[in-house]
Amino acid sequence: MADINSIAKQFTDFYYTTFDTNRAALSALYRNESMLSWEGTPIQGAGAIGEKLQGLPFEKVQHKVTTLDAQPSSPSVASLIVSVTGLLLVDDSPNPLQYSQVFHLIPDGGSYYVLNDIFRLNYG
Amino acid sequence: MADINSIAKQFTDFYYTTFDTNRAALSALYRNESMLSWEGTPIQGAGAIGEKLQGLPFEKVQHKVTTLDAQPSSPSVASLIVSVTGLLLVDDSPNPLQYSQVFHLIPDGGSYYVLNDIFRLNYG
Repeated sequence: MADINSIAKQFTDFYYTTFDTNRAALSALYRNESMLSWEGTPIQGAGAIGEKLQGLPFEKVQHKVTTLDAQPSSPSVASLIVSVTGLLLVDDSPNPLQYSQVFHLIPDGGSYYVLNDIFRLNYG
Repeated sequence: MADINSIAKQFTDFYYTTFDTNRAALSALYRNESMLSWEGTPIQGAGAIGEKLQGLPFEKVQHKVTTLDAQPSSPSVASLIVSVTGLLLVDDSPNPLQYSQVFHLIPDGGSYYVLNDIFRLNYG
């Protein structure tokens, strides 16, 4: 079995680098059946999710992962659940925002797509 | 389809009430294939998970859920991913701790068991 923690690390490195430098490319990681819950708002499908992410009202953004955990999510398929906590630095604000994000990754021809994505800011 | 948000709310109400008042009963919610990541430590199986939870070094504990999100995790099975952020009040500490927790719930004869459980405290 591939090392699930390495897969999770590779995925999140790629995901957040893409988010922070080329947000328009994120929709390729989702499919029609994919779901995003963004701060409690449900969005379905790669197209709508891509639009939502591109339309977020910040120009500059940087994610810093604090904790990363992964587990296999099925006895029969090499899918995995990835749970992230981290800091979000937005535009020129000096105060990073804490966030939590969960991804459910489904294998797809040597790669993975995001079936589930739940994002929440954590207010103190 | 049952309302997934109601299921998530019922489950988390039950889980955290049990955690806060009768921690020994939590292991019944897990199976042999269940996985817990507790602050980065992986634990597998209902027995080991129950021991871990019972052995946590606090006497009094209270969970307060701040946000709760749920999504179906499979096109073929009524499983769901539940993502929680909240506050943990431990013993007589006046400072609640922020936490994030993810559950992957699998239907099982009219009820659900926990296949995946990832818990993290969020330090500021």
